[in-house]
Amino acid sequence: MKLSIERAALLKAVSQAQSVVERRNTIPILANVLIEAEGDIASFRATDLDIEVVDKTVAQVERAGATTVSAVTLHEIVRKLPDGALVTLTEDPAAGRITVEAGRSNFSLATLPREDFPVMATSEYSANFSAKAPDLRRLFDKAKFAISTEETRYYLNGVYMHIADGEEGKVLRCVATDGHRLARIDAEMPADALEMPGVIVPRKTVGELRKLLDDDDMQIAVSVSETKVRFATPDITLTSKVIDGTFPDYTRVIPQGNTRKMEVDASDFAKAVDRVATVSSERSRAVKLALDEDRLVLSVNAPDSGAAEEELAVAYGDERLEIGFNAKYLLEIANQVDRENAVFLFNSAGDPTLMREGNDTSAIYVVMPMRV
Amino acid sequence: MKLSIERAALLKAVSQAQSVVERRNTIPILANVLIEAEGDIASFRATDLDIEVVDKTVAQVERAGATTVSAVTLHEIVRKLPDGALVTLTEDPAAGRITVEAGRSNFSLATLPREDFPVMATSEYSANFSAKAPDLRRLFDKAKFAISTEETRYYLNGVYMHIADGEEGKVLRCVATDGHRLARIDAEMPADALEMPGVIVPRKTVGELRKLLDDDDMQIAVSVSETKVRFATPDITLTSKVIDGTFPDYTRVIPQGNTRKMEVDASDFAKAVDRVATVSSERSRAVKLALDEDRLVLSVNAPDSGAAEEELAVAYGDERLEIGFNAKYLLEIANQVDRENAVFLFNSAGDPTLMREGNDTSAIYVVMPMRV
Repeated sequence: MKLSIERAALLKAVSQAQSVVERRNTIPILANVLIEAEGDIASFRATDLDIEVVDKTVAQVERAGATTVSAVTLHEIVRKLPDGALVTLTEDPAAGRITVEAGRSNFSLATLPREDFPVMATSEYSANFSAKAPDLRRLFDKAKFAISTEETRYYLNGVYMHIADGEEGKVLRCVATDGHRLARIDAEMPADALEMPGVIVPRKTVGELRKLLDDDDMQIAVSVSETKVRFATPDITLTSKVIDGTFPDYTRVIPQGNTRKMEVDASDFAKAVDRVATVSSERSRAVKLALDEDRLVLSVNAPDSGAAEEELAVAYGDERLEIGFNAKYLLEIANQVDRENAVFLFNSAGDPTLMREGNDTSAIYVVMPMRV
Repeated sequence: MKLSIERAALLKAVSQAQSVVERRNTIPILANVLIEAEGDIASFRATDLDIEVVDKTVAQVERAGATTVSAVTLHEIVRKLPDGALVTLTEDPAAGRITVEAGRSNFSLATLPREDFPVMATSEYSANFSAKAPDLRRLFDKAKFAISTEETRYYLNGVYMHIADGEEGKVLRCVATDGHRLARIDAEMPADALEMPGVIVPRKTVGELRKLLDDDDMQIAVSVSETKVRFATPDITLTSKVIDGTFPDYTRVIPQGNTRKMEVDASDFAKAVDRVATVSSERSRAVKLALDEDRLVLSVNAPDSGAAEEELAVAYGDERLEIGFNAKYLLEIANQVDRENAVFLFNSAGDPTLMREGNDTSAIYVVMPMRV
């Protein structure tokens, strides 16, 4: 194998690869990227056995072939090469080496045979559709903060992507929850997505998908089966196993009868929560919200270190209410609001609270209260 | 005590205080900042028993007095307050509390009595002089990378500041070394500094001093005794114990007879060293320099992961030489050069190498070779 690629294109391909590769591997070949060259295309493939990413890029292929080399080392080298450099990769199968040349720099790296590289089995997908990158960005970005990190509840360690009944017909929906808070985000259902099975997309896949979507407005080809999900741009294909478990019936968690409505500027609210939480050094910092006619008082009382109180002007017309929340959860939820005021819908101090952006029900959040 | 200060001035004063405070304290009051208000001045004092910083700022003092409060919590609160806020601090000695008010935010923090706060004893200084902030910045910035972190050689855990004989008369000199490399930086001797005793300024003090000097062109009042050093701007006074030890005779480490001269673009050199070092995963990465007529070949050979080689055009007219260095040391030294080409003076592969910026001998570096 021998090929030449412009440094920027190579860097992009290898970046995505090295990010999938796990830093600590017991199986040496999993640290490697599989480079395949044929025609005028070079492809870079990396896997952790659960996720596989393939990045194809145009290259000057002088000799077709394939080999594998440390993804992290190759990435480091390419990153440090000067911008604009033309990088030539030459395999020496007899020596089990690949040379990386650019200008007056010359690297020789150990390879492992391509035959040992575990290529993910191809699957039949039961649904194939096209989704707009900004829609997918929004769905996952707004849901991911609520993903659980508890390994015992492995079925909560991802975002549940499925087709659901929205208020105005079918929607593509992403839900995440850790039992303390929940995010439910809807987007228009893409054509051909109706038969899609619901899948739990693992946390790491959500992160990798995010890089794929980064700065683009393009259409993403999505394929879903019971066991796998695939997201593809013309250059990059990300395939991932989905979490083998059943996502709990989240609809029962979403309160329907919350009628006490508070409307507040989301940014002012987040800043105030952040400030009053300062005095408490505990990990589970409880913030008390005391609501009265168009007036919200946020307070924290930490016996050893101090107390804090802040008043905010809000729109609230219901009876007096005192309710406590974990400050971190309140903050994270308030930070999801980017367009409008945050609308909180309370029931009692013991019931879950619902939050949404203005009157938009395509993104709603639920947070459990804390006793204060 | 009751006083009001503009948020930006308060933040600046408290930032410097909380940075001196150690995060883990067995003595509770050492976590606190001592606030003293009198006339139209508020002063903020913090200490770790080795370093003391006092920041004075203009304030509206309504009631003079003094108390102490957690430096970190106060800093966090002030940092989170909106820009332009007027902050009022009111002490309630009976309750052992201080309130911090700004706009609609209200905080109540636990205090400890001012009497318990350890104020550093005043000293007689044997030398008092004035130095330019940019000179001090250069002296410490260029020397500090070589400070040792080995606690057993405590007398190397700082920068040795003293008056020395430079090539053109007396100079103010800073030296740091960890036994593997050495930095020797000279500045013009300030008037009145001649009688200054040489002192070892501890690493942490060097860091705090750096903040004091940050963006200013001003004159810094420096006072030195056998046991303490003090740096003062009109607002901030930083006093520090010096390391109680004898700095070794560094002059014997500086090679005098190195005649093989190599001149290289410092930035190109640093980038090349960084690149070739990529292939080695070991901590003590050896880079080999092979010198020939106007030609330098940098190479690394790491049996398991690979090899790297890069050629650089240099000015070199002496006989062939091969010499090895720790890549990290070479990089750090090359990164000190900001104005001119780096000039390396070699002797043999086993002897220390000297580096300086162009023909400027006011900043020289010594680095020990490694067997490769």
